[in-house]
Amino acid sequence: MASIKPLGQRVLVKRLEAEAVSAGGIVLPDTAKEKPQEAEVISLGTGGKDDEGKTIEFTVKVGDKVLISKYGGTEVKIEGTEYLIINENDILGIVG
Amino acid sequence: MASIKPLGQRVLVKRLEAEAVSAGGIVLPDTAKEKPQEAEVISLGTGGKDDEGKTIEFTVKVGDKVLISKYGGTEVKIEGTEYLIINENDILGIVG
Amino acid sequence: MASIKPLGQRVLVKRLEAEAVSAGGIVLPDTAKEKPQEAEVISLGTGGKDDEGKTIEFTVKVGDKVLISKYGGTEVKIEGTEYLIINENDILGIVG
Amino acid sequence: MASIKPLGQRVLVKRLEAEAVSAGGIVLPDTAKEKPQEAEVISLGTGGKDDEGKTIEFTVKVGDKVLISKYGGTEVKIEGTEYLIINENDILGIVG
Amino acid sequence: MASIKPLGQRVLVKRLEAEAVSAGGIVLPDTAKEKPQEAEVISLGTGGKDDEGKTIEFTVKVGDKVLISKYGGTEVKIEGTEYLIINENDILGIVG
Amino acid sequence: MASIKPLGQRVLVKRLEAEAVSAGGIVLPDTAKEKPQEAEVISLGTGGKDDEGKTIEFTVKVGDKVLISKYGGTEVKIEGTEYLIINENDILGIVG
Amino acid sequence: MASIKPLGQRVLVKRLEAEAVSAGGIVLPDTAKEKPQEAEVISLGTGGKDDEGKTIEFTVKVGDKVLISKYGGTEVKIEGTEYLIINENDILGIVG
Repeated sequence: MASIKPLGQRVLVKRLEAEAVSAGGIVLPDTAKEKPQEAEVISLGTGGKDDEGKTIEFTVKVGDKVLISKYGGTEVKIEGTEYLIINENDILGIVG
Repeated sequence: MASIKPLGQRVLVKRLEAEAVSAGGIVLPDTAKEKPQEAEVISLGTGGKDDEGKTIEFTVKVGDKVLISKYGGTEVKIEGTEYLIINENDILGIVG
Repeated sequence: MASIKPLGQRVLVKRLEAEAVSAGGIVLPDTAKEKPQEAEVISLGTGGKDDEGKTIEFTVKVGDKVLISKYGGTEVKIEGTEYLIINENDILGIVG
Repeated sequence: MASIKPLGQRVLVKRLEAEAVSAGGIVLPDTAKEKPQEAEVISLGTGGKDDEGKTIEFTVKVGDKVLISKYGGTEVKIEGTEYLIINENDILGIVG
Repeated sequence: MASIKPLGQRVLVKRLEAEAVSAGGIVLPDTAKEKPQEAEVISLGTGGKDDEGKTIEFTVKVGDKVLISKYGGTEVKIEGTEYLIINENDILGIVG
Repeated sequence: MASIKPLGQRVLVKRLEAEAVSAGGIVLPDTAKEKPQEAEVISLGTGGKDDEGKTIEFTVKVGDKVLISKYGGTEVKIEGTEYLIINENDILGIVG
Repeated sequence: MASIKPLGQRVLVKRLEAEAVSAGGIVLPDTAKEKPQEAEVISLGTGGKDDEGKTIEFTVKVGDKVLISKYGGTEVKIEGTEYLIINENDILGIVG
C-alpha cells in the first residue's frame, strides 16, 4: 500500500463516520460553534525538534481515536481513501 | 462512559447552569463587556511542555469551579451532555 | 463570601468610584485619549510562570490602589458587587 | 501629594510647554511626519523583568528631559496636573 | 547542467505529473479544501541554523517523493524544466 | 548647543541634500520602489540590551554616511536644523 | 568608486539581465506565481548577530549568482548603476 510519512510534528488521521461516532458515545453538538470531528491516528510524523534540536515525542499513538478541529489539517487521498495530515498541536483530545 | 483526554495544556470543563451560579453567589454582569461563565473542571489534559521539554503542571484540578471566557474553548457532546475543551490559559480564575 | 482566585498573573480588582478618586487627588483627564481608572487590588492570582517554570512574584499587593486601562480586564459580579479580573501587565501604576 | 508609581518598565513624565521648548533650542518640526514631544521624567516604574527574572535598570532618570512619541503613553491627572505614563521603550531620546 | 543550491532550510523540488501520481496510488481529493501536490526532492539547501548556530539537518533527502502545499514555494525554470524552491517546513509528508 | 541622546539602539542622523549626494556618486533611483536616503550619523544612542542584559555595540559610528529607509525614523528639529531619530536596524548600509 | 557596506545580514546585489540569464540556462517562468530574479552578489554586510552576540557568517559570497524574490530588497543607484540591498534570508538559492 502506498503510504505517507508526515513531516515533523504532523500526524496522518482518518476521519470516522458520524454513525460510528454516535455508537461510541461521542456526539458532536448542533450549534454555530466550531465543531470538532473524530478521527483515528494512522501514522505519526518524523517528529518536530525542540529548541535544543531533540526530536519531540508524540503524545498520541497509532490507533488513538482523537478529536480534531473541523477545519484543521490538509486532505489527501491514498488509494481511494481520504486522510488528513494535521499538526499534533491541532488535536484537541484523545477519545478513550 | 466514553471519555475524552484533552491534549496538552487543555482541560475538559462542563458549563454550570445560570441558576446554580446565582445560588453560589457569582452573578455575571449585564453589560456589553465580555462576560465569563462558570464551569466545572471534568478532566485535565496530557500536559503541555515547557522549553526544556518537561510537562507543565496544571494549576486547576478536577472538580474546580472556574470562570471561563464566554467565547473560549470548543464544544463537544459526550453521551448527550455538552462539554468544552479549553486551554488552561483561557481560564480566568477559580471560584472558591 | 464566594470568592475568585484569578489564574496565573491575573489579579482581581474593584473599581473605585469617581467621587472617592477626586478626594484622593487623582483625577482622570477629560480628553479623547485612553483614560485609566482607579481600582483596588482585592486578590492576587495563582502566579504566572517564567521560562524556567518558576512562579513570577506579583509587584502589586492586596489593598494597593492601582491605575488600570479603561478597557482592560473582564467584568465579573460576586454577590452583587462588580469586580474585574485583569492581567498584572495591564496595570499602569500604583497610586501611593 | 498624591503620587503614582508606574508598574514595570513604565515611567511617569510631564509634558513641557512649547514655549519652554523653543527656549531650550528643541523645536518640533511642522510636517506631516510623526512629531515627538518634550517631557520631563517625574518618576520611574517598579522595573521590568528580563528573561532571568532580574529587574531591568532604567536608562532615564528622574529630572531627565526626554523626547516622546506624540501618541505614546496614557494620560493621567494628579491634583490638577496632567501627566503621562509611558513605557521606557517608547522614549526616543534624552535632551541634554 | 545549470543548477540551483537553495539557501537555508529550503529544498528544490520538481512537481510530479497527475498521471504518475494516480499510478503510485496517491490521488489528490476533489474538494474545496487546500490540496497538496506530489513532488520529487531534487536538491537540499545549504541548511538553516538553530539557536546555537548549528546547521539543522534535513529530514527529507534527494529522491524523496513528498507532498507539498499547492500554493507553497516559488517557481523557477532551469533549462526548460519547472522547479519549486520550498521551505522544508512546508513539506507535509514523504510518500513511501 | 542643545543635543539629543537617542535611547537604546537608536541613532540621531541628519539627512544629506540631494546635491551633495549626486556629487558623492550615490544617486537614488527614480522608480516606484522604496527609495533610501543618505544621511550622516550625528550621535549614537545609549545602546540596546541583548538577552543577557549586556549593551549591544553599534555597527555605525559618528560621522558615517548611511542609507536609511525614506519612511523610517522620527523627525526632530534642534536649533533650526532637522534631524531624524532612527533605529540602527533600519539603517540599510554605510556609504564608504 | 563610491561603495555601500550593507548593515547586518544584508547583502548588495546587482540584477542580471534577462539575456544573460537565458544563456546561463536559468529561465524564469511565465506564470502568475511570484517570480525570482537572478542577481550577482557584489558585497556582504557587516553581519547580523545571533542570540549570543556573535556575528553570523554569510552563506553566500561575493561573486555568487543568486535567485532573489522579485519584490525583495531596496533599490539604490551607485554611479549610475542600479543595485539592491537585500537581507540574506530573502535569497532563495545560489545558481551554480
